[in-house]
Amino acid sequence: MTSSPISEGVPAVTAEDVTAAAALLAGKAVLTPLLESEALNALAGGRVLIKAESLQHTGSFKYRGAYNRLARLSPEERGRGVVAYSSGNHGQAIAAVAQLLGIGATVVMPADAPSVKLSGVRRRGAAVVTYDRATEEREAVAARISEETGATIVPPYDHPLIIAGQGTIGLEIAEQAAEAGVRPSAVLVPCSGGGLIAGCATAIRDRWADAEVYSVEPAGFDDTARSLASGRRERAIPGAETICDALRVPMPGEITFGINRSLLTGGFAVDDRDALGAMAAAFHHLKLVVEPGGAVALAAVLTKRYHCRGRSVVVVCSGGNVDQETFVQALRVKS
Amino acid sequence: MTSSPISEGVPAVTAEDVTAAAALLAGKAVLTPLLESEALNALAGGRVLIKAESLQHTGSFKYRGAYNRLARLSPEERGRGVVAYSSGNHGQAIAAVAQLLGIGATVVMPADAPSVKLSGVRRRGAAVVTYDRATEEREAVAARISEETGATIVPPYDHPLIIAGQGTIGLEIAEQAAEAGVRPSAVLVPCSGGGLIAGCATAIRDRWADAEVYSVEPAGFDDTARSLASGRRERAIPGAETICDALRVPMPGEITFGINRSLLTGGFAVDDRDALGAMAAAFHHLKLVVEPGGAVALAAVLTKRYHCRGRSVVVVCSGGNVDQETFVQALRVKS
Repeated sequence: MTSSPISEGVPAVTAEDVTAAAALLAGKAVLTPLLESEALNALAGGRVLIKAESLQHTGSFKYRGAYNRLARLSPEERGRGVVAYSSGNHGQAIAAVAQLLGIGATVVMPADAPSVKLSGVRRRGAAVVTYDRATEEREAVAARISEETGATIVPPYDHPLIIAGQGTIGLEIAEQAAEAGVRPSAVLVPCSGGGLIAGCATAIRDRWADAEVYSVEPAGFDDTARSLASGRRERAIPGAETICDALRVPMPGEITFGINRSLLTGGFAVDDRDALGAMAAAFHHLKLVVEPGGAVALAAVLTKRYHCRGRSVVVVCSGGNVDQETFVQALRVKS
Repeated sequence: MTSSPISEGVPAVTAEDVTAAAALLAGKAVLTPLLESEALNALAGGRVLIKAESLQHTGSFKYRGAYNRLARLSPEERGRGVVAYSSGNHGQAIAAVAQLLGIGATVVMPADAPSVKLSGVRRRGAAVVTYDRATEEREAVAARISEETGATIVPPYDHPLIIAGQGTIGLEIAEQAAEAGVRPSAVLVPCSGGGLIAGCATAIRDRWADAEVYSVEPAGFDDTARSLASGRRERAIPGAETICDALRVPMPGEITFGINRSLLTGGFAVDDRDALGAMAAAFHHLKLVVEPGGAVALAAVLTKRYHCRGRSVVVVCSGGNVDQETFVQALRVKS
């Protein structure tokens, strides 16, 4: 499967692709729990089910897409290795899956990535090449390495197999919510390049055609929300900053936005302070360690940017790779 | 079922009692995940599967026993309410289950219990009566309330239905480990009055007759370890102190020790510093919030008091109700 231009009316990823990914991932990825807290329900004013994907291998959902891509490489491709570019979570996932499958991996990471993410990649045996986010393009660095070594580039989100892998979270949400007797009216998902939410929306809308799916992004990096509003791919605000390092991408992916444009209801943006407050709430009420970018969907519900008003919603907490200094900062935010 | 004296050869709790509890708890308690981290495996020198019971409703395993007891009260007993004594986690569980089932509850708690536990009980609608750990006996306070109101006393561990409820964790461990293709050689469980480990051992030894089951306690409160060694119920060291507030009991229960004496292999004690280090490891590698007492079994493995040496073991992380100051203290422990 290649990332060829998308034909109108032919989805790049289907519910069947997600089901196939789930079959491949069975017993490999953690079936993360769908949790609930009465205290959080009271704060949100509705019923909030939390998909605790921070408990996934390598601490984020990225493991799913990485596995679904790497396990399908041919023996020849495996021999030439892979190269990935990543703010950290995708890199850790690629490193872990490559190590598991005996594939050499190089990860191109920003020099200012959190140390927990840099060390997480190195500890798993991958080579790290750093770049300056202000002056270099990570795609160009990865392309040069691929040309020199023949390594397969594994993009962080804009690939059908990556999207289908992340979509297994949506499939699990549908199954776990049904087991709990809940029919959610909305699913809120942290959004960066849009791979996680594109896959989740594919699975969820296949199961519940009228379920609403919303992206949640950091303010300034709400390019998906603005793209959904305008109908074309918009860029993040130049010079914007956020503590949500996992969600800092310049614009939605081409393939992901093609899916998201047709399946998402809309998007929300939250401030860093809201993300930190949601991390504190996850600590107190769910006993989960969630990173800033992983907490934005919970933040949207707790700040009532999305108001639950007696409805049942599912919130994805997508990762937990946070430095302890940032975590302590979150605990000290007054809510 | 009453807590009558135990006849030799007739176990107070059977594997069938645990199976019956599991049927009652299905869909009520969280099926908590069995997690694994390559980094933790490397630190421990073996394969360590973590039963993340800190993700249970009310933040600890106590919910299971509370539900298994309260759901079996007669309508008349429900009308008279319940009274419990607890360092906090049992109290929170009783409060939550009583609220769910529409039963009035009073919880007798030490005046110096962590504020997160005191507020957790009050928030769930139960009345709190505090006592001074130095000068009063909590059992006597509860007995007086029971006499005055007719409320049923729900002891924290020394009751067959409580033990069977906690034992559902052991049943889940057996099923989840089998799904993962793992046959653990040992299971390590935090131990206070001994109800959790008695129930777990009942289920696990029924499944794997030769599996070793070890208690882990804070130093000074290693009354179960010393009781297993001497063959009779020993008391905690007078004047001992520990940060593990959930594991501060004066001696093993009568019913629990009757079970544990016949099923446990032995016990370990860990220092507060070890418990704090294990909390930090759970933060970094599992993305879990674990309280000091909930982390002692993980501490025993990480400090190699129990040495994994290439074996597969299961470690129960039994609770996550920790004040943020104590959690920050744990993150700052140098490991």
